[in-house]
Amino acid sequence: MSERNRPVPSVGMVGGGQLARMTHQAGIALGVDFRVLAASATDSAALVCGDVHLGDDRGRDDLLAFGKSCDVLTFDHEHVPDPVLRELEASGVVVRPGRDALRYAQDKLRMRTRAEELGAPCPRWRAVTTVAQVEAFAEEVGWPLVLKAARGGYDGKGVWVVDDAAEALVVLERAAEAGVRLLAEEKVAFRRELAVQVARSPYGQVAVYPVVETVQRDGICHEVIAPAPDLDAAKATRAQELAIELAQALGVVGMLAVELFETAHGVVINELAMRPHNSGHWTMDGARTCQFEQHLRAVLDLPLGSPSPTAPYTVMANLLGGADPDVYSRYIHVMAKDPELKVHFYGKEVRPGRKIGHVNVAGGDYEDLLARARDAAAYLKGDPQ
Amino acid sequence: MSERNRPVPSVGMVGGGQLARMTHQAGIALGVDFRVLAASATDSAALVCGDVHLGDDRGRDDLLAFGKSCDVLTFDHEHVPDPVLRELEASGVVVRPGRDALRYAQDKLRMRTRAEELGAPCPRWRAVTTVAQVEAFAEEVGWPLVLKAARGGYDGKGVWVVDDAAEALVVLERAAEAGVRLLAEEKVAFRRELAVQVARSPYGQVAVYPVVETVQRDGICHEVIAPAPDLDAAKATRAQELAIELAQALGVVGMLAVELFETAHGVVINELAMRPHNSGHWTMDGARTCQFEQHLRAVLDLPLGSPSPTAPYTVMANLLGGADPDVYSRYIHVMAKDPELKVHFYGKEVRPGRKIGHVNVAGGDYEDLLARARDAAAYLKGDPQ
Repeated sequence: MSERNRPVPSVGMVGGGQLARMTHQAGIALGVDFRVLAASATDSAALVCGDVHLGDDRGRDDLLAFGKSCDVLTFDHEHVPDPVLRELEASGVVVRPGRDALRYAQDKLRMRTRAEELGAPCPRWRAVTTVAQVEAFAEEVGWPLVLKAARGGYDGKGVWVVDDAAEALVVLERAAEAGVRLLAEEKVAFRRELAVQVARSPYGQVAVYPVVETVQRDGICHEVIAPAPDLDAAKATRAQELAIELAQALGVVGMLAVELFETAHGVVINELAMRPHNSGHWTMDGARTCQFEQHLRAVLDLPLGSPSPTAPYTVMANLLGGADPDVYSRYIHVMAKDPELKVHFYGKEVRPGRKIGHVNVAGGDYEDLLARARDAAAYLKGDPQ
Repeated sequence: MSERNRPVPSVGMVGGGQLARMTHQAGIALGVDFRVLAASATDSAALVCGDVHLGDDRGRDDLLAFGKSCDVLTFDHEHVPDPVLRELEASGVVVRPGRDALRYAQDKLRMRTRAEELGAPCPRWRAVTTVAQVEAFAEEVGWPLVLKAARGGYDGKGVWVVDDAAEALVVLERAAEAGVRLLAEEKVAFRRELAVQVARSPYGQVAVYPVVETVQRDGICHEVIAPAPDLDAAKATRAQELAIELAQALGVVGMLAVELFETAHGVVINELAMRPHNSGHWTMDGARTCQFEQHLRAVLDLPLGSPSPTAPYTVMANLLGGADPDVYSRYIHVMAKDPELKVHFYGKEVRPGRKIGHVNVAGGDYEDLLARARDAAAYLKGDPQ
């Protein structure tokens, strides 16, 4: 059902994952007409959204039909093929972020090339197709180094850390079979990982959030501390400026997340995402305007909301599924133990290692908050205490 | 659609108004299976909720069918007839708050009688059916006095301030025609109006929110200041204790709002509501746990969340419709002027005087916040500035 009572714009989000679910939640307050294109009625967003279109969220026909039904089209993932984006735009659908911007989020080779042109700090990198090229690059940056798929990947992976030429060869061969282009990157000796989010509207307004620390384990984001503790003020400002410069130069509309490595000398860009992002889930309980509301305001060309934090620190911990799917029973104990904790569940089937929700907790002492958030996540997963 | 992926409880809310809309919004984070029984697909909650049952939200058959489909049944209004509540409970539906509690919210004579038994402070009052009774009561409390319908009313009204016996006679006659019982109450010489909200779970846990000031004009709540500025600490504590005592004594499950008059000597009870309430909308942007999440936690017998404020003050202003229905265009200017302001729209057709949303703004200086909230509400209504 749509908001038929008033002349408000309609926003369609492609993809029915948790980002669409939480964007719907934010859209309720804005009073806009929000709908999702979801592959299944049991997708995270489809379970709660009042206006669900079922279809292939990467397929031409369903995307065109959905796009034409909306005033603005946006995305909870970056997997819509470029030719489909081109056709959507050619047919008059308002796509935000647009195809020209999305191509930088979809293709790491394109992103690195453009970032370098802009003078943005990147790890050393090179496009590679042969072992000889990888070896030559390794003479510059040393082993181990990182191989990345420019887009997609194989076996569900897109990033490989390789120790030597033999390991690189395996990746090169498998990538060639899968038709995947690769780039090699130096393995950055980072102190920690950071992220910064900025919203940009078609009008050109930007709103930048505080720089956060992201704690990754096994390639999965486990916790986010907002703002990043003890971050040098000049580095923080530089990271925020970098995000704004990238958003402007790449023509981003909506939320842009810039994942960064903090090194001894400054920050370098790891990845970009042009949508609400896991590193910004803390904003739901820790910022005046959460990233989902901000994304909607940006894609609708509404004035942006204040990104100010509402507490000295907010910590987010992702909830991963464990062996026992009965999360709800454990949930009760977590609520009883910590009445300040905010739990966000995605309605997803519990499977080991799957992101099924997150918790936020805000306050003055980030070490205390981190301990509480980790404790809740471990308990909900069912880990032995 | 329901949350079919996990064994979570289902909560059904009777009524498709803005309270159900905002309860749905809170339920998304909790990951529970939330559904509404709405009279129309264009009801405020029906526009955004993923699981809408259309039917008569006061009628026996639709309520029984809906109630039997849910683990817990709750309400966004107090208009379900008592015999239907009795039948729901007799048929095994878990009704929260239950019929025994709801009767005190539905019937002002019953509420006053019980509150007096409990020693709770009330205005002087008397059940009246004749002008002679009203005149005898007026000798005690003076003119003008207040006549109230015990339940319902006529001509869309349930409260009348009468200056003399002649005016009282008109009300008595019309009430008798409509089959409405009346009570007379003294017109309290109050300093201001206050409200306090408490949540109570079946387990017996309670969580009480700070006492707020409610600013009424023409019988409509216009603004809420949380907490009530310059309120004597003893009075504030007494008001919170009173709410807890009432919730326990009346067996409330869910949110209870107690509307109070502040007098020179203390506080007296004006009205009760057993559901999320307009006086608690500030909690959406000003408390760790908003009243809608708290209501769900309470009716599901989950541990309650912290009711702590997240800012020194939060001010809420209701948005009323004006002559020009194009609120969305004005909305943009309000957002541009005050990026800290949180707007909550209900998706309702704009009609003069109708509540179509509210704004919240949090910070340190309540006079500044009040000016900003009023300014936004006036601008959105379309009043000349």
